[in-house]
Amino acid sequence: MNSILTYEEAFDIIKEHFKLLKPSIIEIDILESVNYLLAEDIVSDIDMPPFDNSQMDGYAVKFNNELREWEIIGEISAGNYQEYNVNINTSVSIMTGAKLPPGADTIIPIEDVIIESTRIKLKDNITLKKGNDVRFKGEDIKKGIVAVHSGTLIKTNNIPLIASCGKNKIKVFAPLRIGLFATGDELIDINLVPQNDQIRSSNLHTLSVFIKELNMIPVNFGIVKDDKTQIQDTINKALERDIDILISTGGVSVGKYDYLKDVIEDCGFELVFWKVKVKPGKPLLFCIHKKTGKSILFFGLPGNPVSAYVSFNLFIKPFISEMYKYKQQKRFIAKLEQDLTKKDNRKTFVRGFADFNNSTLNTQHSTLNTQHSTLNTQHSTLNAHICTVRKAAGGTQSSGDMSSLSDANCLIIFDAEKNKLTAGEIVEYRMI
Amino acid sequence: MNSILTYEEAFDIIKEHFKLLKPSIIEIDILESVNYLLAEDIVSDIDMPPFDNSQMDGYAVKFNNELREWEIIGEISAGNYQEYNVNINTSVSIMTGAKLPPGADTIIPIEDVIIESTRIKLKDNITLKKGNDVRFKGEDIKKGIVAVHSGTLIKTNNIPLIASCGKNKIKVFAPLRIGLFATGDELIDINLVPQNDQIRSSNLHTLSVFIKELNMIPVNFGIVKDDKTQIQDTINKALERDIDILISTGGVSVGKYDYLKDVIEDCGFELVFWKVKVKPGKPLLFCIHKKTGKSILFFGLPGNPVSAYVSFNLFIKPFISEMYKYKQQKRFIAKLEQDLTKKDNRKTFVRGFADFNNSTLNTQHSTLNTQHSTLNTQHSTLNAHICTVRKAAGGTQSSGDMSSLSDANCLIIFDAEKNKLTAGEIVEYRMI
Repeated sequence: MNSILTYEEAFDIIKEHFKLLKPSIIEIDILESVNYLLAEDIVSDIDMPPFDNSQMDGYAVKFNNELREWEIIGEISAGNYQEYNVNINTSVSIMTGAKLPPGADTIIPIEDVIIESTRIKLKDNITLKKGNDVRFKGEDIKKGIVAVHSGTLIKTNNIPLIASCGKNKIKVFAPLRIGLFATGDELIDINLVPQNDQIRSSNLHTLSVFIKELNMIPVNFGIVKDDKTQIQDTINKALERDIDILISTGGVSVGKYDYLKDVIEDCGFELVFWKVKVKPGKPLLFCIHKKTGKSILFFGLPGNPVSAYVSFNLFIKPFISEMYKYKQQKRFIAKLEQDLTKKDNRKTFVRGFADFNNSTLNTQHSTLNTQHSTLNTQHSTLNAHICTVRKAAGGTQSSGDMSSLSDANCLIIFDAEKNKLTAGEIVEYRMI
Repeated sequence: MNSILTYEEAFDIIKEHFKLLKPSIIEIDILESVNYLLAEDIVSDIDMPPFDNSQMDGYAVKFNNELREWEIIGEISAGNYQEYNVNINTSVSIMTGAKLPPGADTIIPIEDVIIESTRIKLKDNITLKKGNDVRFKGEDIKKGIVAVHSGTLIKTNNIPLIASCGKNKIKVFAPLRIGLFATGDELIDINLVPQNDQIRSSNLHTLSVFIKELNMIPVNFGIVKDDKTQIQDTINKALERDIDILISTGGVSVGKYDYLKDVIEDCGFELVFWKVKVKPGKPLLFCIHKKTGKSILFFGLPGNPVSAYVSFNLFIKPFISEMYKYKQQKRFIAKLEQDLTKKDNRKTFVRGFADFNNSTLNTQHSTLNTQHSTLNTQHSTLNAHICTVRKAAGGTQSSGDMSSLSDANCLIIFDAEKNKLTAGEIVEYRMI
């Protein structure tokens, strides 16, 4: 397929190919498990709570509708159980979390009694209910029940339950291993100062942090010269390192494409598409490797840093997020601050800044607090906040301008078929 | 101060005390810098781009309004600069990113010309503009300019610019070191199977992952018996380890409070408050240590896992987020699915599930896609999604029920002065 695809076509094709990736299952420590996708059912190996216990500091009694006074015959605190038999007229002083003694079925909270030497008396206004303030054995979860299901994205609020099931090690879907290399004779390490026509190579850093941000594993193969043999060696080295995805930057523009394509094919990849009608990021090479019984996706991203960043954001991030059930990127709307024009029919993603402070306040929910006002204005066509286009100092927004990307917090969506967006118009954007 | 505070009072007091924390500055690798707060201005040490260059594959010419044909006198690719002098009538084949030769000021994209042997001819429909497709030296950012300001929360979109400034190591505000210990004679390690009246201690795991999720550093001092000397030893050990915050769980209920308070004060902490009118999490001990020239905050959280989780969420997380400029937790609204009642005047945070799929679709933005429909319903009082209360299998929602916390995705806010929320009513909630 060598025609130029629309954004939507490219998106759908990549989406289909991502389904070929089959992450393996690994075991990790519970302390590292947040944001991983659970690959086993976590089963409760005990009743929780494991015994009837008190959820208040107070007195354990055997419920009797007619009694209002009890003798105190002992004390039990959590972890210091002693066997007292609670009968009619007797009680045991009990602390939060402590196991109930035999006979006791009801807790009287300490603030509901008057203590008189070794006796307690229920305060006048208090009516006791059977089972009051008792947490019964197994009421949270019973032994043998699935506490957290396989396929759950583990969050902090799952940890108390998982830990209480005694799971120190947890089976999760392994993060994808994503190989990276940057091609270009002009590229030097960021430690060096560029001479003559050299450029610091920032893409490996950007993509590495982006991949780590998605909880995946970057495998960095470094800077490679525009040289067939060197690129081929790098790709072969990557293929030996058990990667799921391989990403290169550079070498996809007209002048270099032919030999990158040749090398890729020599290494066993099959070309899926090369170009997408988007800006930035039109040259985007997408290939698949199926030869070794495992599918490996190859993305050849443009070399310029903004295009590489946006391409990753548009064409790789969404599918990793979907695969691992991360929060999907939402699209929002806002009022555009200035006119935008374009001449071509490429779907364009304009670096912008959605300014939540600069909004006409929404009176619709005036009974709620101002936090909500902001919230509502954020999503209302009537009271939208302002969205400003970010430009570099020179007033441009060329694909190479990293300062406008650094200043931006969103990408304003400028549809393929449109040529103008007018100041004041409601536009769609996605946060970055 | 020993009276019971409202949620709002406790919140404000803690907020003030957090201002006493002064994180130090550390240097970290750029690859680890995302989600850190920048503690230095990143200054561009070079012009970016460092030289005039082509942003397309094409031909570099000296602009002349009347010319439509040029001779090709050479070729320059990125990183392979050669000195050709471009005059009237001559051009150099140039690739994306390559440095412009002397004399050249305009790029003709390859698709706009017809190539005839060693000459190029502008296609009939093409009008050339001076400076076309040239990225001029310094147009992105000039040498000596602040590229990213101190106080910026570093995100992936800042990395291309920071890397291009040659910054491998970056000064950021150090994460807070947060000491943790769990008190309770009943507690055992999660590896063990509880006997008699033992309970697996999950709080250290939960708080550790929560602290790491906030990009802070947990320092785990383990499980400590309800024993004055052991607790005192643990706190003193923590104080020697350069912590900013110390958190204990357990020992704050009526029956144990007195001696925990004594130990805390013996270790040089000053009591700020003990109880807050919230549920879960009423007993919350808050102290400050100012003796060593550095303020250390102490939070004594309840021992039960849900209360500990919610207390951290309500009274610690918001201030760390504010201090490090993380995204603030938003409050949302939804339609409540079932009645909720309570008897006391404690502000109650009910474990709930905000179901974004179970919503009446909003027709207001029917021209937009369904992603937006969800979005709008999410924030509209008229078409709110459903919010369900999460209960444990036993039908309860006691502070100890971890299964309802594990199933929840939000905390429904039940105001102190209210005693009933009715099914169908619009309620506020915060995501967890």
